[in-house]
Amino acid sequence: MRIFVILPILRNEVFEDITRRELEVAKRKDTEIYVVSLDEGPASIESAYDEELAAPWILERVKEAEDKGFDAIIIDCMGDPALHAAREIVNIPVIGPCQASLSIASMICDRFSVITVLDRLLPLFRRKIREYGFEDKLSSVRSVEVPVLELEKKREEVKARLLSEAKKALEVDGAEAIILGCTGMVGMAKELQENLKVPVIDPAVASIKMAEILVDMGISQSKRGYPKPPEKLRIL
Amino acid sequence: MRIFVILPILRNEVFEDITRRELEVAKRKDTEIYVVSLDEGPASIESAYDEELAAPWILERVKEAEDKGFDAIIIDCMGDPALHAAREIVNIPVIGPCQASLSIASMICDRFSVITVLDRLLPLFRRKIREYGFEDKLSSVRSVEVPVLELEKKREEVKARLLSEAKKALEVDGAEAIILGCTGMVGMAKELQENLKVPVIDPAVASIKMAEILVDMGISQSKRGYPKPPEKLRIL
Amino acid sequence: MRIFVILPILRNEVFEDITRRELEVAKRKDTEIYVVSLDEGPASIESAYDEELAAPWILERVKEAEDKGFDAIIIDCMGDPALHAAREIVNIPVIGPCQASLSIASMICDRFSVITVLDRLLPLFRRKIREYGFEDKLSSVRSVEVPVLELEKKREEVKARLLSEAKKALEVDGAEAIILGCTGMVGMAKELQENLKVPVIDPAVASIKMAEILVDMGISQSKRGYPKPPEKLRIL
Amino acid sequence: MRIFVILPILRNEVFEDITRRELEVAKRKDTEIYVVSLDEGPASIESAYDEELAAPWILERVKEAEDKGFDAIIIDCMGDPALHAAREIVNIPVIGPCQASLSIASMICDRFSVITVLDRLLPLFRRKIREYGFEDKLSSVRSVEVPVLELEKKREEVKARLLSEAKKALEVDGAEAIILGCTGMVGMAKELQENLKVPVIDPAVASIKMAEILVDMGISQSKRGYPKPPEKLRIL
Amino acid sequence: MRIFVILPILRNEVFEDITRRELEVAKRKDTEIYVVSLDEGPASIESAYDEELAAPWILERVKEAEDKGFDAIIIDCMGDPALHAAREIVNIPVIGPCQASLSIASMICDRFSVITVLDRLLPLFRRKIREYGFEDKLSSVRSVEVPVLELEKKREEVKARLLSEAKKALEVDGAEAIILGCTGMVGMAKELQENLKVPVIDPAVASIKMAEILVDMGISQSKRGYPKPPEKLRIL
Amino acid sequence: MRIFVILPILRNEVFEDITRRELEVAKRKDTEIYVVSLDEGPASIESAYDEELAAPWILERVKEAEDKGFDAIIIDCMGDPALHAAREIVNIPVIGPCQASLSIASMICDRFSVITVLDRLLPLFRRKIREYGFEDKLSSVRSVEVPVLELEKKREEVKARLLSEAKKALEVDGAEAIILGCTGMVGMAKELQENLKVPVIDPAVASIKMAEILVDMGISQSKRGYPKPPEKLRIL
Repeated sequence: MRIFVILPILRNEVFEDITRRELEVAKRKDTEIYVVSLDEGPASIESAYDEELAAPWILERVKEAEDKGFDAIIIDCMGDPALHAAREIVNIPVIGPCQASLSIASMICDRFSVITVLDRLLPLFRRKIREYGFEDKLSSVRSVEVPVLELEKKREEVKARLLSEAKKALEVDGAEAIILGCTGMVGMAKELQENLKVPVIDPAVASIKMAEILVDMGISQSKRGYPKPPEKLRIL
Repeated sequence: MRIFVILPILRNEVFEDITRRELEVAKRKDTEIYVVSLDEGPASIESAYDEELAAPWILERVKEAEDKGFDAIIIDCMGDPALHAAREIVNIPVIGPCQASLSIASMICDRFSVITVLDRLLPLFRRKIREYGFEDKLSSVRSVEVPVLELEKKREEVKARLLSEAKKALEVDGAEAIILGCTGMVGMAKELQENLKVPVIDPAVASIKMAEILVDMGISQSKRGYPKPPEKLRIL
Repeated sequence: MRIFVILPILRNEVFEDITRRELEVAKRKDTEIYVVSLDEGPASIESAYDEELAAPWILERVKEAEDKGFDAIIIDCMGDPALHAAREIVNIPVIGPCQASLSIASMICDRFSVITVLDRLLPLFRRKIREYGFEDKLSSVRSVEVPVLELEKKREEVKARLLSEAKKALEVDGAEAIILGCTGMVGMAKELQENLKVPVIDPAVASIKMAEILVDMGISQSKRGYPKPPEKLRIL
Repeated sequence: MRIFVILPILRNEVFEDITRRELEVAKRKDTEIYVVSLDEGPASIESAYDEELAAPWILERVKEAEDKGFDAIIIDCMGDPALHAAREIVNIPVIGPCQASLSIASMICDRFSVITVLDRLLPLFRRKIREYGFEDKLSSVRSVEVPVLELEKKREEVKARLLSEAKKALEVDGAEAIILGCTGMVGMAKELQENLKVPVIDPAVASIKMAEILVDMGISQSKRGYPKPPEKLRIL
Repeated sequence: MRIFVILPILRNEVFEDITRRELEVAKRKDTEIYVVSLDEGPASIESAYDEELAAPWILERVKEAEDKGFDAIIIDCMGDPALHAAREIVNIPVIGPCQASLSIASMICDRFSVITVLDRLLPLFRRKIREYGFEDKLSSVRSVEVPVLELEKKREEVKARLLSEAKKALEVDGAEAIILGCTGMVGMAKELQENLKVPVIDPAVASIKMAEILVDMGISQSKRGYPKPPEKLRIL
Repeated sequence: MRIFVILPILRNEVFEDITRRELEVAKRKDTEIYVVSLDEGPASIESAYDEELAAPWILERVKEAEDKGFDAIIIDCMGDPALHAAREIVNIPVIGPCQASLSIASMICDRFSVITVLDRLLPLFRRKIREYGFEDKLSSVRSVEVPVLELEKKREEVKARLLSEAKKALEVDGAEAIILGCTGMVGMAKELQENLKVPVIDPAVASIKMAEILVDMGISQSKRGYPKPPEKLRIL
């Protein structure tokens, strides 16, 4: 199976490399992944504004993936930018890491917390999680207050803050599991899980896994929920 | 007060004219409105895909409005495209017709139906209304099955179908009021209201009115809910 | 446009004056407001009991307003006493400050707190806000613990407590905007907003604004939701 | 135990007699009931307007009940008029038939329908049931379209319509049990239950039973939820 | 009336005696109660695992009760083990203390807390209360951290912890009433209520009272919600 | 990876064979499945009663699976019997087909219908889906009215009824996808999906897939949500 992973940010070797490396570990042997980023759009996604600026270029990549015969698409950002639109324009499954993580978290506990990069993203997560219908299971959204583009550089600091915020999520907010709130945190789940003794979900990994099983099952987004857009003039 | 009205579709004289004409009637005497459309983007908005393709160009217009000293902005499409992002990048109030209509409808009844252009938009409306937190008041979403760009040409047919769908919304779905589900239906509410004897909300008019009172009250979107995006490289 | 404002408490010159003065500032130039209070009923409204004792006399005023040709009615108390009944007996729009504030708050943020006069009113607000369907957006209800009739006398104390409770609402409860929880706090929003840097909604002002736009739009409460009461013997 | 039953309508011998007769059957041997109606107020309760006009006089009766040493109070109307206010002003339990019926219905099924007197009451019931937090269990509200004051005269017609509406509630709306939607239907549950083979709840009977057990258990409305109104001038 | 009380744990004289003694006080004079425990199953119920191991033996007792002509059945454990199954196999009412307590609590306040034996039961209570549809009224679940089988021995300690946890429920969590979260706490409500000045519900007592009134009213679980299981081979 | 599949019914070669055969097709190459049924319990599961009678024997199998070093457990019945208890007693992931199907369905649409074997199971599904927190996405539950043990014999009839009920779910109830409501329908999804042109989820397949990815991700049920039961005397 061939999965097309769109990093919805401006070309960024550090992120591409780490994403490729971690997803190579996470994927099944018979899965091939292909990681791309954008030529236009924002350097990182930390606002609804960034999501909107990335969207048209994500959607071009989405079409490209189907044209090239890929089996599934991951929009590899926790904001799930352009997810609904992408599902309209192709028939192969399109996965957003946020929704995939919520979906899997529902299998292992009743209440979870999301720990993301910046406080400024808290209202976005609350809106998104409400739209997806998982708000009753959300204990809290917290952040490490480190921008996306500094995640790699400040890796140890990020891990320390993840641990301390996750502990507050468990002790104060009543969470039973943790969802990492940025796909840039890929690879940080395992150690955190060992420290916390509760499940920690890596959204990039959750996406690959969800893509693999939707392909296995031969199902994709319902065209009753995501009908093909009508033909018309569209200028980009 | 000066209100900037963004028709988030490719330049379209018919729509601009009718929007201007109807909003001139709807607005207060001391309100000036300025209607613009887009140079890039889709010819009409009838999918999440169209919304995403319009978004970056809407956001350019949004910045222009604040730069030019307007007091409020309306994104004049019932899908409220780019609404959250727009609220992040400016301080003046940004209004979406869908949210404004739901908000006003909540003042006059407990259950309302939305009647939009195409069946394919029903899932989008349900997602949007759920995200806004008004799903418990939604009796139904129905459509007249006429594309946006044919609304003017088929005006009589549209009015007839609006009437018959609205009657079903009242009798079958238990609605107490009707929200027109496309800003292209501007100017059709009054006659429908007279026929139905229940309130009918015109979303374009609702937006102008909501813009006027937010400006009057000196309030705008909370920057705690819509913080300014951080500076970074963004290529469009 | 002529708006009839019912202060649903025993004649009280201080409150009538301050209400008139502040609403004169808030209203549009072409709006006339007419403020009345009651000859029977409670001296102030601080319980469901007070609301019920005021209701019959409010309803007499409501009929008087329609008979005299007013365009809209405001029941100027944050408990929205007799609101549903009033909407049944007249065709012109009847506005309650609580519902109007919730409705407008929904346009500018996802989560708000109400700060009212007395702790004893907290359960009433929670019931009311749940009945109106806005409970998911309510961060908290807090109070300044000053009775309605002392609001004017203790104006500086009230403002100080509003500020400190509002800060807790933002920092502890996660509110993004503040709604003043008593129409007797009229005129205190602006300064608070400047201090807090988040929107603060004055419910009396919200009511005038909502009345103005419902009249502009030619809509009123749906008679499917608020049908006329049948004729029968009623002794007061 | 002595229970004070307030028929919140103008003195009406027919209703007093039938209520007394049926409650005598429903009550325990060691329970005494005392049925009173009002000297002021509406002839029947079929609107929020009627509820508000009855409220002050209900509240006088409520105080009288506590003064005379009764153990519990029932406001014997399915609209639960003045219920919250009544609970504030006394310490003995005050029961509303609507809330008591919903509470008991929750013990025997997951989904129930209410069948009331008039279509015009449907929005009132939906508001009330939502306020009480039972909306997820409500299959439907239906009516027999017979005014309260004709219930006795048209008894056979009412029973026939109850049966046909209840059948629709079961077959079309998915109800598992039926709640009679007017205390004037007292005495009609048993036959209906035999015909339908599902539980039918008589709200007047439900109220007596709930009053008896609250007294037995030594519990009453929480004064944290229903604090005593502060002393002040109140003119009726 | 004869009520069959199943203590769903291994024969335990201490618990049987205390249950009998307290229920003798709680029941009406004309009610006979018959308390039994199990020959197989767990020594106490403190997990979903215990609930499942007790279930088949509870269900045997349930059939026995109907066969012997009892009027109602109480499964006397706050986890309501085997409740739905029991309602399917008999026609007489089957009551679970958790559901009965929630139902009665809804009559006296809007928000309550449950205080149970062990922290490990908190997620079970949250799942159960959500399944019953009362999650919006739940302020919190807290525990005294004393195992069921030590409740009697540590009676004074349990009462002290109940008091301190209940105070936190009122002050920190906003509860208006308290539900004891284990039927082994039978007899502890009264003193706690006197100390707290808010209603305290004893679930064993709530169950007896609810059983009495369902029998009085001649209603039982709806067979539309709890249909009889089909005949088939079942080996235990 | 080795997955232990518990058919929670009395030994039944037909079901074991078909389950093995279809799961062999559904599983990954590197997954081994081991299908067992029960020596005690019910011949099939078509009621809460059946679920409770199966539970203790399921739980024995669950322990056996962990003892034998399996990586995950599936309780292969759409009622998810004993799921919560099973998750308490082992550390390896335990999957219920109902929850797994709901979780995956949430990735591909906003509204789905479940089509099960018997009408009598409809209330059970509604309770279960509510408990799991997916009730807002449930369009309807429908049935083919064929008992579990006749599914194989009446295979063509079942497929015809599945098709006609599914069409009603799409057209009348507004579903966007279909979930087969019995693991005995294993193998029927593909043809139905081809006929309907919407995704059809096979719950047995969904369970295998979910088990595979939980194992891949190294996560299991949170022990904060499903703590180990305390040691105590338990007699079966």
